[in-house]
Amino acid sequence: MIDVSSYCVKPGSVVNLNKMPTCQGGGLNKVSARKKLLLLLKRIDQLQELMYAEGKHALLVVLQGMDAAGKDSTIRNVFGPVNPQGCGVVSFKAPTGEELGHDFLWRVHARTPARGMITVFNRSHYEDVLIARVKKLAPLTQIRKRYAHINAFEKLLHDEGTVMVKFFLHISKDYQKARLQRRLDRVEKQWKFNPQDLAERQRWPQYQKAMELVLRQCATDVAPWYVVPAEKRWFRDLLVAQVLVQTLEGMKMRYPRLGFDPGKMVIE
Amino acid sequence: MIDVSSYCVKPGSVVNLNKMPTCQGGGLNKVSARKKLLLLLKRIDQLQELMYAEGKHALLVVLQGMDAAGKDSTIRNVFGPVNPQGCGVVSFKAPTGEELGHDFLWRVHARTPARGMITVFNRSHYEDVLIARVKKLAPLTQIRKRYAHINAFEKLLHDEGTVMVKFFLHISKDYQKARLQRRLDRVEKQWKFNPQDLAERQRWPQYQKAMELVLRQCATDVAPWYVVPAEKRWFRDLLVAQVLVQTLEGMKMRYPRLGFDPGKMVIE
Repeated sequence: MIDVSSYCVKPGSVVNLNKMPTCQGGGLNKVSARKKLLLLLKRIDQLQELMYAEGKHALLVVLQGMDAAGKDSTIRNVFGPVNPQGCGVVSFKAPTGEELGHDFLWRVHARTPARGMITVFNRSHYEDVLIARVKKLAPLTQIRKRYAHINAFEKLLHDEGTVMVKFFLHISKDYQKARLQRRLDRVEKQWKFNPQDLAERQRWPQYQKAMELVLRQCATDVAPWYVVPAEKRWFRDLLVAQVLVQTLEGMKMRYPRLGFDPGKMVIE
Repeated sequence: MIDVSSYCVKPGSVVNLNKMPTCQGGGLNKVSARKKLLLLLKRIDQLQELMYAEGKHALLVVLQGMDAAGKDSTIRNVFGPVNPQGCGVVSFKAPTGEELGHDFLWRVHARTPARGMITVFNRSHYEDVLIARVKKLAPLTQIRKRYAHINAFEKLLHDEGTVMVKFFLHISKDYQKARLQRRLDRVEKQWKFNPQDLAERQRWPQYQKAMELVLRQCATDVAPWYVVPAEKRWFRDLLVAQVLVQTLEGMKMRYPRLGFDPGKMVIE
């Protein structure tokens, strides 16, 4: 078992991403990690069904990371095996005109999970303090207030039954280069390459700084941030899955009381 | 390979569900069927990615069936292995007050897939001519007009790029009894049992009749209905998966032209 707490950002602490590992194996190897992962995924599936049966909680998972950090493949590997009826994915792109007509949490709030469900946010409201900060999409005075708005929103979700966990998939700039090059080299992946991504890559230090601010301001007890060394993908998947199992088990869920006596039901 | 066309309802034909098989193996056995299924699921996953890359089509899958016909497990087995980011499930329950404030297609239209995506409807707008007809939830004169509204709506989807395929999971009344009893007998499944389902079971012939009307009125070339013998679950999954592969392959999709020369991109 990985000690997941060592990847969890302590509320209020100052984070230096440069000093945090991007490539780790936790003393495990790929084969044993994949075996452990299978057991954890089975458990997540069972716990989601229990969560649905109980009807008291939902689970919201936020995934953030630079381009090519592995958000898509984490979703495929960790959430793919969960019952698709109990687990949805929302990918937040650049906001539409209608979305921009509202506060930045409007479109996000609308897509939070119903009780019993798991929702994965591929990017999230955090973009409104990441890309929005780096590219000055809103005045700085407005962006500075957003951290507190985010914390209040996440507290609301928590108090109303939605448990939240947030992952930053941490990679190095060199690793990103290798992954982007791989997209260019494989014919069936070229469509994923967007030349605009290269411009964002130039702003690497600014994005890292903006993310450090997020971790400092928005790592809370009710909505923790985990910084995941994401270059070894099998370790990344295992760490994320283990956090999910521990989070779901922490809900102390039970099957609901039945409103009837199963022994007395007669099916004609 | 199963000859899927023999399970497809011919537009305008009169269907007698009593004469259609509920339990079939198609000359296959469970082990070989599961192997074939794995290959088909892999292909569905690839084709969904291609559909996303091309950005011209979406796939909408409708699942209907009596209680315990296996809608949930079909979703788990056939759509579970598809990338969760490209595949969503919408379960339609009894309409809310807001939904009842609109025409019956309003809530359904809102949940149709975006281009590139697969959406599975677990129950659908067909409930508005099934349960609504059996339980007289709307005047008959209104319900009678709905078949044409459904056909017009499905034609719209087709003409705008959403390919549709509809499955009725066909079981016998005896099989339903066995499945419902199984829910009662297993402690961790008892929460799924709803005593109200027994009242619906009493209306079995009316539901079958209402479904026969649907098949007669709404099996079209652009949105075909398949009647799936659903009692052997491995056969059910295989038939559904094969129809999906053939439907996706029928779209004749291609990767989009790139707006850049991959050989000339330099990642600094």
